[in-house]
Amino acid sequence: MEVWRIDLQKQEFQKEPTRETWQHLGGRGLLARILLDEVDPTCEPLGPGNRLVFAPGLLVGHMLSSCDRISVGAKSPLTGGIKESNAGGRTGLHMTKLGIKALILEGISEPGSWWILHLSNQGARFEFAGELIGKGVYESARLLLDRYGEKAAIALIGPGGEMRLSSAGIQNLDKDRVPSRINARGGLGAVMGSKGLKAIVIDDSGGEKPPIANLPAFRAAQKEFNKALMEHPQTRIYADYGTAAMSRMSNGFGGLPTRNFSKGQFQGVETISGEYMRQLLLSRGGESETTHACMAGCTIRCSNVFGGDDGKSIVSPLEYETIGLLGSNLEISSLDTIARLNWEINDLGLDTIEVGAALGVAAEAGWMEFGDSERAMDLLQEIRRGSPLGRVLGNGAAITGRVFGVERVPVVKGQAMSAYEPRAIKGTGVTYATSPQGADHTAGLTIRAKIDHLDPEGQVALSRGVQINMAGYDTLGACSFAGFGFAASPLTIRDLLNARYNWNVGEDILQALGRDTIKLEREFNHRAGFTSAQDRLPEYMRREMLPPHNAVFDVPDEELDGIFDW
Amino acid sequence: MEVWRIDLQKQEFQKEPTRETWQHLGGRGLLARILLDEVDPTCEPLGPGNRLVFAPGLLVGHMLSSCDRISVGAKSPLTGGIKESNAGGRTGLHMTKLGIKALILEGISEPGSWWILHLSNQGARFEFAGELIGKGVYESARLLLDRYGEKAAIALIGPGGEMRLSSAGIQNLDKDRVPSRINARGGLGAVMGSKGLKAIVIDDSGGEKPPIANLPAFRAAQKEFNKALMEHPQTRIYADYGTAAMSRMSNGFGGLPTRNFSKGQFQGVETISGEYMRQLLLSRGGESETTHACMAGCTIRCSNVFGGDDGKSIVSPLEYETIGLLGSNLEISSLDTIARLNWEINDLGLDTIEVGAALGVAAEAGWMEFGDSERAMDLLQEIRRGSPLGRVLGNGAAITGRVFGVERVPVVKGQAMSAYEPRAIKGTGVTYATSPQGADHTAGLTIRAKIDHLDPEGQVALSRGVQINMAGYDTLGACSFAGFGFAASPLTIRDLLNARYNWNVGEDILQALGRDTIKLEREFNHRAGFTSAQDRLPEYMRREMLPPHNAVFDVPDEELDGIFDW
Repeated sequence: MEVWRIDLQKQEFQKEPTRETWQHLGGRGLLARILLDEVDPTCEPLGPGNRLVFAPGLLVGHMLSSCDRISVGAKSPLTGGIKESNAGGRTGLHMTKLGIKALILEGISEPGSWWILHLSNQGARFEFAGELIGKGVYESARLLLDRYGEKAAIALIGPGGEMRLSSAGIQNLDKDRVPSRINARGGLGAVMGSKGLKAIVIDDSGGEKPPIANLPAFRAAQKEFNKALMEHPQTRIYADYGTAAMSRMSNGFGGLPTRNFSKGQFQGVETISGEYMRQLLLSRGGESETTHACMAGCTIRCSNVFGGDDGKSIVSPLEYETIGLLGSNLEISSLDTIARLNWEINDLGLDTIEVGAALGVAAEAGWMEFGDSERAMDLLQEIRRGSPLGRVLGNGAAITGRVFGVERVPVVKGQAMSAYEPRAIKGTGVTYATSPQGADHTAGLTIRAKIDHLDPEGQVALSRGVQINMAGYDTLGACSFAGFGFAASPLTIRDLLNARYNWNVGEDILQALGRDTIKLEREFNHRAGFTSAQDRLPEYMRREMLPPHNAVFDVPDEELDGIFDW
Repeated sequence: MEVWRIDLQKQEFQKEPTRETWQHLGGRGLLARILLDEVDPTCEPLGPGNRLVFAPGLLVGHMLSSCDRISVGAKSPLTGGIKESNAGGRTGLHMTKLGIKALILEGISEPGSWWILHLSNQGARFEFAGELIGKGVYESARLLLDRYGEKAAIALIGPGGEMRLSSAGIQNLDKDRVPSRINARGGLGAVMGSKGLKAIVIDDSGGEKPPIANLPAFRAAQKEFNKALMEHPQTRIYADYGTAAMSRMSNGFGGLPTRNFSKGQFQGVETISGEYMRQLLLSRGGESETTHACMAGCTIRCSNVFGGDDGKSIVSPLEYETIGLLGSNLEISSLDTIARLNWEINDLGLDTIEVGAALGVAAEAGWMEFGDSERAMDLLQEIRRGSPLGRVLGNGAAITGRVFGVERVPVVKGQAMSAYEPRAIKGTGVTYATSPQGADHTAGLTIRAKIDHLDPEGQVALSRGVQINMAGYDTLGACSFAGFGFAASPLTIRDLLNARYNWNVGEDILQALGRDTIKLEREFNHRAGFTSAQDRLPEYMRREMLPPHNAVFDVPDEELDGIFDW
C-alpha cells in the first residue's frame, strides 16, 4: 500500500512508499498522524496550506461486513480544528484495491478552474469538470457514471462545496450507485471545493484486494465476527427500522431535540418514528425498501429507500439524525416532507445535521415559522441560489446564530449537535463537549448504556470509553454498528489485524488505536489554539432547563477537563 | 466616587462603595479588573452573563486637555475576548460629575422591550424607549435632547446595536451635541442592544467636579502639561489637517490599505489626503471646520466638520482610519463620498473600520466592484434594512469572509485591522497580533517611530512600549494625542495623580498602570480560551507579498510570544 500524493496547483502526481510511522494506521488514526505531520494547524482551512486526505481503514478491502469505510480529513473550516468524517459506499474499497493507503491532496487549483481527478492503475490524471459546475450531486453523479462507466467509485461535492460552505460534505456512491454516502460533517466538501476539485473518480480495474498474510486465520475470525453480528438483537432492529428506531427512544428519554433544542420531547414523534416509517414503506411498496445495505457485504442493512405515495424513491437513506434535525427540531412531523428536505440537502452536497440545526436557529431568529415545511424548502432554495441568506445557513448553525444575533445555538467548537439532547443524554453531552471533532454523536454516543442519562455522575467515564472505542473503529474502517459484532467477539479485531498484516497485536488493540488517535487529534487542536474553554457546551445549556425533565447540563467542568487523563 | 450598578432584568439600581482593589484604577484598567472579577470569560457575549461597564479614566473631570474620555467594556461579541473602547465627548465628564467611578449594567431586559436609562443626582430610573427603536443615531439623539434638555450627556446605540450586530458601537455626544464620539470597536453596541438598552442619558445638574486633594500642585502640573502639548509640533499638524494627515504618510510607507488589503499604495491618495481636505474645507466654508474639539477644554482640536459643496455639514469628524477603510481600501477616492458613507455608518451606529473592512471583503467576493461608491451606499442600506446580506456585513469582516468563502480577510481575533498595513508597518502588525483587544491601532500605533517599518527587527520591543503606554493612557482617560504632551513632560502624570488623589505614585506610574492592565486583559482572554495561536496575523499576510515593497509579515512567532514576558 502506497501514499498517492496530488499537487492541485501543479497538477502533479506521485506515489510514495508509506512512512514507517504511518504503516500501522488507517482511517481516522492515519488522518490524525498525516495532518499533524503535514498541515500547519494555524493555517487558513480554505487556503493553500490545508490538505485534504482520504484514508481507508485498516480492515478495508475484504468486504467484511460494515468494515469498508473511507475516512476523509483536513483542518475543518467549520471548527477550525482537526476533522475526520467517514462514510460507507464504494470509495474505500476501490481505493484499497488500487493499493492506496492514503490519498493526499495539497495546494489549490487556479482560481475558477474546476477539475475531476481520475485514479486508476495507470495513476492519476486531471480532466475538466466544467459542465458539472453548479449541478446538483445526483445529476453530477449520473453524468460521471455515464462518462466513466457504472463500475466507477466516485467521491464528489455539490453546489455547497463549490460555494465553500462550511456545512458541505463529500458524497460517495453506495453499492447501487446512489451518491448518498456522505463524509458529511465539518465542511470537508468546502475544503475540496477550495482546491477546485469537483469529483474523484476511481476505476479499480486491474486492482485487487489487498493480500492477507494468513488467510485461514482471517476467515476464521471473519466467521466468528459475522456470527456475533448476526446474532446481536440490535442487528435485527436496524434491519427492520433503520436508525429511525431511535426517534421513540430519544423522545422517551426526553432527549429528542425539538424546536431548536428548547424541548426534549416532540408531540409529533409518532409519525416520525421508525415503527411508523416501516409500516408506511411496507404499505407503499414500489421502490421503497425498509432495509438496504450501503456497502457490498454488509449484513446489518440499516439503510432504507424512502419511497413516496407513487412508489418512487424520494431519498435513500432516511436516517434518524436527519429526522431529528429536520423533523422535531423544526417541528415538522411529516416523513414525506423530511425526506424531500433530505434529498434537497443531499443534492446541494451539505450535511443534514448542520443545515437542520441552522434552520432551527434561523426559525428562532424569525426567518421561518417552526413547522412551516414550505418555508424550510424555500430556505434550501436560498442556499442553492447562493443568496446571502442561503450562504449564511449553508455555513451552519454557529454562523447563523452570529449573523442573526441568536443566543440559543446548539454547537460545540462551531459544529452543530446531532439529534441527542445533551441535557437529557448527558454522556453524549460529554462527548459533544470534549471530542476533538466538535459536537458529533458518531464520536461517542452513549444512549444505549444502562445508566441514568440525567444523572451527571459516571458520564465522563462512559463517554471516555465510547470515544476511545469509536476512534478505534474509525481507524479500522468499521461502521459503528459493526461494533455490536466486535463487542460480542472482542478478540476478532486482534485476530483479523494479525491475520491480515502478519502483526502481533494484543487484545487491547482497539483501545490502543483509539487512544493514540484522540491524543494526536487533541495535539493538532492544541496547536490550532484550542484549550479547555472550547471543551464546553453552549453556556445556555448549563442554565436553561430542558422540558420535560427540566434538566440542565451539570457535568462539572473539572470532570470534563480530566476526561483524557489516562 | 461610587459604583453604580444596574440590573436590567429586575430594573434595580444600587450604589456601592468602590472596592479597595478598584480604587486606584479608572478607564481601561478598571474595566479589565471589573470584568475579570465579575464576568465569566466563557459566557455568551449577548447572553445574560455578560456585563457592560462604563468607566471614566482616572484624570477625567477637570477638563484637562484631551483627558475626559469614557471607557466602555464587556466581553466582546466580535472577538470573544475582553474589549475596551474609549471615546471623547461629554459622557466621561458628566458621569464623573455625578460621582460615578463605574457604571455596571448586568442582566438583560424582557426580550423585545427597549429602555432609556436616566442617571442624575436623584439616582437611576428607566423610561420607555419605544418610539426611538429603528431610528438612526442622529435622529434619536435629537429626540433625546428635545426630551431631556440640551445639557444632557447621552450614550446611545443605533439600529446596528438594536440588531446586535458585532460591529455596533456606542455613540456619545460631543461638546456640540453631535453623537459622533464612538466607543466603536468590538461590538459593545451589540452588548448594549442585547440588554434592551437604547440610550443612557446623564443629567449632571447638581453634580460637581471631583475634589482635588492638592489644587496648587494640580494646577502647576496642568500648566506644564498644557505647555508641552501646545508646543509639540504634532499638535499644530492635527489642528491643521486632523488625523487625515496620515493618508500621505501611510501611502509613503507603502502601508495604506488598498483594495481589501492587497496593496499598500493607492493611486487616488492625493484626493483623500489631509492637505487636500484642508484646502477643500477652507474653500467651501459654511459649516465646514478644519479644526474642532470633541471635548470641552481640548487644545489639540484634531476633529473637523466636513461640509459639502453647499456648505452644510456632511459628517463630523472625518478621520484618517475611516478614509483608509472606506476610501483606499475600497478604491474610492472622493472625500465627499467617503464622508457620506461615514455619516450613514454613524447613523446606523456601527464602526467605520469594521464595516469598511467588511465591504472590502465583500468586494473581493463579488458583492460590489472596487471603486463603486453607489453600490457601497446600497450595501449600507442593506444593513439598515436588516437583510441577510446587511447583517452579514454588519457583523464585520471575519463573518463576511466566512459566509462568502474569502481567504483574504484582514482581521486578528475576529476584529478588522485599521488603516495601517501590518506588512509595511510591522510594529503595528505586532500590536494587531498581540494586543488582547484584537487588531486595533489605538492599542499601539508605531508609525511615528524612527525605525525602518519594513525591518522585522526591533518591532516587538517597539510595540511593547507603545502598547504599555496606550493601556496607561486609556486608564487615565487621556486621548492618545495627549500623549504628545505627556511624553514631553513625563512627570506631569505622576504629579497630576498625586495632586488629584493624594497618592504617592512614582514616575513609572503610566507604565505600571499599562502593564497591569494588559496583564489582566490577557488573563481574561486566557480564561476565555485564547492561546498564542490567536496572537497571529492572518496566514496569508505571512505568505502573500504586499506591493510596492513586496513585503510579508515576517516578525518571528517566538518574538510575538515573548512580547509580554516582562
